[in-house]
Amino acid sequence: MERIGVYFIGARGNVATTATVGATAIAQGRMPATGMVTDGPEFKGLPLVGLQDMVFGGADVSSTPLHEKASELGEARILPEKLAHELRAELAALDKQIHTVKGFAFGAVPEGGYLAELTRIEERLARFRSDHNLARVVVVNLCSTEPHFAETADFDTPEALLQALVKAGGGFCTGTLLGALAALRQGCAYVNFTPSQASELPALRKIARESRLPHAGKDGKTGETLLKTVLGPMFLARNLKVMSWVGNNFLGNNDGAVLDAPASKDSKLRQKDAALREMLGGAFVKTDIQYVPSLGDWKTAWDLIHFQGFLGTPMTMTFTWQGCDSALAAPLVLDLVRLTDLAWKRGESGLLAQLAPFFKNPLDGHTHDFHQQMAGLYAWVDTVRAEQARERK
Amino acid sequence: MERIGVYFIGARGNVATTATVGATAIAQGRMPATGMVTDGPEFKGLPLVGLQDMVFGGADVSSTPLHEKASELGEARILPEKLAHELRAELAALDKQIHTVKGFAFGAVPEGGYLAELTRIEERLARFRSDHNLARVVVVNLCSTEPHFAETADFDTPEALLQALVKAGGGFCTGTLLGALAALRQGCAYVNFTPSQASELPALRKIARESRLPHAGKDGKTGETLLKTVLGPMFLARNLKVMSWVGNNFLGNNDGAVLDAPASKDSKLRQKDAALREMLGGAFVKTDIQYVPSLGDWKTAWDLIHFQGFLGTPMTMTFTWQGCDSALAAPLVLDLVRLTDLAWKRGESGLLAQLAPFFKNPLDGHTHDFHQQMAGLYAWVDTVRAEQARERK
Amino acid sequence: MERIGVYFIGARGNVATTATVGATAIAQGRMPATGMVTDGPEFKGLPLVGLQDMVFGGADVSSTPLHEKASELGEARILPEKLAHELRAELAALDKQIHTVKGFAFGAVPEGGYLAELTRIEERLARFRSDHNLARVVVVNLCSTEPHFAETADFDTPEALLQALVKAGGGFCTGTLLGALAALRQGCAYVNFTPSQASELPALRKIARESRLPHAGKDGKTGETLLKTVLGPMFLARNLKVMSWVGNNFLGNNDGAVLDAPASKDSKLRQKDAALREMLGGAFVKTDIQYVPSLGDWKTAWDLIHFQGFLGTPMTMTFTWQGCDSALAAPLVLDLVRLTDLAWKRGESGLLAQLAPFFKNPLDGHTHDFHQQMAGLYAWVDTVRAEQARERK
Amino acid sequence: MERIGVYFIGARGNVATTATVGATAIAQGRMPATGMVTDGPEFKGLPLVGLQDMVFGGADVSSTPLHEKASELGEARILPEKLAHELRAELAALDKQIHTVKGFAFGAVPEGGYLAELTRIEERLARFRSDHNLARVVVVNLCSTEPHFAETADFDTPEALLQALVKAGGGFCTGTLLGALAALRQGCAYVNFTPSQASELPALRKIARESRLPHAGKDGKTGETLLKTVLGPMFLARNLKVMSWVGNNFLGNNDGAVLDAPASKDSKLRQKDAALREMLGGAFVKTDIQYVPSLGDWKTAWDLIHFQGFLGTPMTMTFTWQGCDSALAAPLVLDLVRLTDLAWKRGESGLLAQLAPFFKNPLDGHTHDFHQQMAGLYAWVDTVRAEQARERK
Repeated sequence: MERIGVYFIGARGNVATTATVGATAIAQGRMPATGMVTDGPEFKGLPLVGLQDMVFGGADVSSTPLHEKASELGEARILPEKLAHELRAELAALDKQIHTVKGFAFGAVPEGGYLAELTRIEERLARFRSDHNLARVVVVNLCSTEPHFAETADFDTPEALLQALVKAGGGFCTGTLLGALAALRQGCAYVNFTPSQASELPALRKIARESRLPHAGKDGKTGETLLKTVLGPMFLARNLKVMSWVGNNFLGNNDGAVLDAPASKDSKLRQKDAALREMLGGAFVKTDIQYVPSLGDWKTAWDLIHFQGFLGTPMTMTFTWQGCDSALAAPLVLDLVRLTDLAWKRGESGLLAQLAPFFKNPLDGHTHDFHQQMAGLYAWVDTVRAEQARERK
Repeated sequence: MERIGVYFIGARGNVATTATVGATAIAQGRMPATGMVTDGPEFKGLPLVGLQDMVFGGADVSSTPLHEKASELGEARILPEKLAHELRAELAALDKQIHTVKGFAFGAVPEGGYLAELTRIEERLARFRSDHNLARVVVVNLCSTEPHFAETADFDTPEALLQALVKAGGGFCTGTLLGALAALRQGCAYVNFTPSQASELPALRKIARESRLPHAGKDGKTGETLLKTVLGPMFLARNLKVMSWVGNNFLGNNDGAVLDAPASKDSKLRQKDAALREMLGGAFVKTDIQYVPSLGDWKTAWDLIHFQGFLGTPMTMTFTWQGCDSALAAPLVLDLVRLTDLAWKRGESGLLAQLAPFFKNPLDGHTHDFHQQMAGLYAWVDTVRAEQARERK
Repeated sequence: MERIGVYFIGARGNVATTATVGATAIAQGRMPATGMVTDGPEFKGLPLVGLQDMVFGGADVSSTPLHEKASELGEARILPEKLAHELRAELAALDKQIHTVKGFAFGAVPEGGYLAELTRIEERLARFRSDHNLARVVVVNLCSTEPHFAETADFDTPEALLQALVKAGGGFCTGTLLGALAALRQGCAYVNFTPSQASELPALRKIARESRLPHAGKDGKTGETLLKTVLGPMFLARNLKVMSWVGNNFLGNNDGAVLDAPASKDSKLRQKDAALREMLGGAFVKTDIQYVPSLGDWKTAWDLIHFQGFLGTPMTMTFTWQGCDSALAAPLVLDLVRLTDLAWKRGESGLLAQLAPFFKNPLDGHTHDFHQQMAGLYAWVDTVRAEQARERK
Repeated sequence: MERIGVYFIGARGNVATTATVGATAIAQGRMPATGMVTDGPEFKGLPLVGLQDMVFGGADVSSTPLHEKASELGEARILPEKLAHELRAELAALDKQIHTVKGFAFGAVPEGGYLAELTRIEERLARFRSDHNLARVVVVNLCSTEPHFAETADFDTPEALLQALVKAGGGFCTGTLLGALAALRQGCAYVNFTPSQASELPALRKIARESRLPHAGKDGKTGETLLKTVLGPMFLARNLKVMSWVGNNFLGNNDGAVLDAPASKDSKLRQKDAALREMLGGAFVKTDIQYVPSLGDWKTAWDLIHFQGFLGTPMTMTFTWQGCDSALAAPLVLDLVRLTDLAWKRGESGLLAQLAPFFKNPLDGHTHDFHQQMAGLYAWVDTVRAEQARERK
């Protein structure tokens, strides 16, 4: 059986750790695959890579080993404490496949300049593939959100980008961008689970297209935005006029701390609002994120929806969402790896539009409506099945 | 231009009054058609009956005239007080088209027996049509919920039903049932907006089929159940395991008072739960309705959804819905009249499956998923449009 | 140092187990005393019994040993899993001080009749005191709620009650009642933390008075009712007119299952409503409890308060309380033992009115207002302190 | 009977209009005094000024007449539309007692300089008193919140302040400050219902003391902060450890628009947070205000309280408050006038500490605990009553 590499940028973070623990536990039959979309009946029988055939690796700026991190997540009630304990040995072994790296802040320059950093990342990816004899490698970006930067002409073509990387004294490029570039240059598929800018830039799209590599993004749709894209279409379908939709997100994990910096917050909110703004036309839409340390990974969201019904009568809906962010994100990461790999095997490349329901800001997606996005994914599944049926004859 | 009769059983109730006031106000250009599904862009250009071509009539056990009732609704903030004032004369005129009738409680027998009552209803319907020279009449049931009864062999065929009506000393038939029977026997289309049993009974289905009449039902999906059928599919699509879904509805209008009687409550809850139970398999699903007088028509619902994510992590979603029941129901009633009439004009008869998204318990509908139901309605609209295009050539 | 016996009826239930684990952990300095009222600054320096001087014992119908129960509570996140693990040996030792007993349902008769059962309980209490050489014993009732019974003349005097116990063929007495009777007859103080009928009955009050024993009750005020007695006075103080107050409680523990039986539910709701009904005069007050298995010990309450402000303007407040019932109750049980013991040492007997803030239905308490009740408790503390100061001179 | 002047700075704003309409309606017996604290049984028989003996006047930058404003408030459901209609003539007459004035933004200088503006305000106050032959005048500040300024030495004494007013080219003084100064210099009592700086400044306190005038403030405690000061003490009393308390306020009235300007928002939030921060020690306390136009005067607040119980178990409480700000504030304004006037008649001057429960930031108040503050007010009432009793003998 061929083995697929799953390379996490941010491999010792909450989401990557939860995904790695979960994949291991499910592969061993210790746990059901609750929360994994591809475990649903609609996906039965598709030639998706099994969790036992995934090889996990990656890089992180943190040096806390995977098994320690898993224990921390157990204590924080993000995953079962017992499970972290039982898988300690496996996780310690997997931690050896994660490189501790130096990050660089936006604006700063990594050691030796951007190009040297790019080369280092590419070497690590190449070694990961050859060491484990992997058929294909999917790189998933799980880094903290980085500041938004302007899309200048430097990002228009691969050539312009490489020139800029050589010349620039700093200040125009992020770790996320280098990671995406390295992945595509090394023939890996790329999935951007964060709101940072990466494979949507013209230069990177071009490399993916020319190298016949699939990519997908961006910004995993896990909680409050998911609800917005489920409830928003309902108000539209019923012709109820949303006057205001105010979304408030409270969280206390590292992501929350990073988002407290105005630049990153702006980058994040840009995506969170986009869905509703497009859907609801003239409504007053506002989304806020606040850092509340005691909540940890348990994101609490409260949305207030003020709308008009028949003859202008004002009405109100509010919802409270108390979800564990990492436990919501991790299974989707595994789904994205499986679906990206399947598309790749079928010869698909460039942007995978069918993966829109997984993202807050689906690149090239033409709708934010979750149920329409799912209909698109199911239609693709039908195509794959029809193909399978033809081949079998 | 041909005129369409809209005959409300319960014509002086909150929903019928709001629908009548609204249709009048919108037809006069005083108000936008917010909350009417058929006012959405998807329905543009369809040959739907205009609100100005609807003639309103009906029957009610209440003798409070329509214009007084409208003022009451204005004071209760269900519709704009000013509007009730401005339309006073029109409403007083329309009230003349409403018959004050004697109702009969379940178990009781109307004056002269069931058959006499049936005849009286039929005569009123016939006169309404001839008096106003109506092309077609759509009868809409908006009565208070009636107790659920067992579907014996008496309801199997029109013949058996008529025999039973003649013979029975009482106790097996409701006003709603007689109304539906009268409507279909008089060649009217029938829409059941309540949870009471009516056109889904085999005897009535048969009459509709044989008389080539369309009918639809049952129980308008206005608030909490709408949300359930929008949110439930999201949990399924994401493979999140709902452990418990507890729905709590608080309301203070007449409907609430009637539902306080255990038999009617049971009838209502049967429909409200059905959607979720079918969708969520093994989940613990419970729905409750409580009468809280001070809330009046402002139904407040609070739902608690307790679900498991990845690796069994328990999470919670709650929502609060503060909607004005009549203001949510009234525009849907007008939509149902328009869509039923259009289907009728096209030659459709029997159960109109495309109207599923309007009902808590769509008869013969194969899904409770609101977005799937809407997809069904849009598909029907596409068919109608294609037909129109062919005809135009 | 003298040692105080704490005898739990229901010693292997959630609350008693949490209290025992907590007292042990706090006495060992492993945990702070968060949630214990008597740990607050207002109680500093009072001669309250230390947690290390409490000897725990009791009886239960369950035979699951204390250390196993503690592990279960750990997994259910009611107390830290790690703590249950670390205290395993101590808890196993403490479990030896708990008798596994046969209970008897309301209406049934225990083996040998009521009097035989009473004697057995008294013997157990006597042995507990002598075995551990205890200065005083406080019996705390933590049994599941029992059905409400009529207060006939049998409960008027100790003599009448004993006669009835001898003669009655069954059907008039509960385990809770026998427990309270045994406690007082054996010279123990008695605290009723449940809504069942016990020491408020005239016969038992008389025994307590004549034997100079303190008692307190009833029904621990832990969550939703606490909030009602804190928020209700605010609406009164501001002269805002509460129209409706609808309280909804959802829980999934054994208590919830027992409350699903209509008779027990009635007994419980009687107490929960009492506070608000008295306070809010004409308001529509309704309280409901529903059993939702997946919630376990995590009681979720949602209250809807509909009120009128200036010039009749209607407004709304809702709150959601997600509290762990046992973790809220356990520290109060320890507080009640300490405060009852201190009162006893001072020579107080009969009903302890100063303990009103701990109870949903304070016996003889003249107010349900929590802050007024606390003012009463603080006033008592001041008296004790003044006494201490006099003695020290 | 002596008549008392009530002079509103901001007399055509929402709160002042609602108070004026309400006082008129209640005095005429059209409406009960719901929401007025001094209408409660605790205040029965006190020699408080009757609403019929209040003469309303004031100033505003808006020229929309009182009766028009009242109609607007009626349409916005802040007060009964019908009432605005019925009192139209009275309100038009009362509007004549309101001066339309030019305001000046913080940093700007009024026409002719600060001193000229002060003189104009004083002349208006003097004329109001003499025109209506008023025994006493209470000036109430109801202006929009103004930016916070530094308390320099200019505010230390009346002399320093007057000198600064003469010399300063602008940028150190607000309209609110001049209003307070004018009031006290003209022998009026002063109540600051807003968070702006006024009578708490040393120079003004001195004038009040020396002129034997009472004053009170600041920032009316109407909704979310009221709840904080009711619920916060409960968590303290129960020794539950609040980890985070995040308050979110959404409103759409003029106050909301002004608060959208960062400087005013800062001034407001300073008061809102103070109460909880002081009470809850180390907790993470954060309060936010967001402008949501469609909500109008209907402030919606959502607070998230994350706390630890016994053995560290984390729990959550959230509340939603949907109150009409002006309808909550207006009756308190009338209460403050009555209680300030009564204190004045009794010879009290300087800061009225007994009025603490009415304010978010009670000047010189030693507690934020609402029930303790009310106990203080009731104690004062008892003193007044005792005095009355002595006098009567």
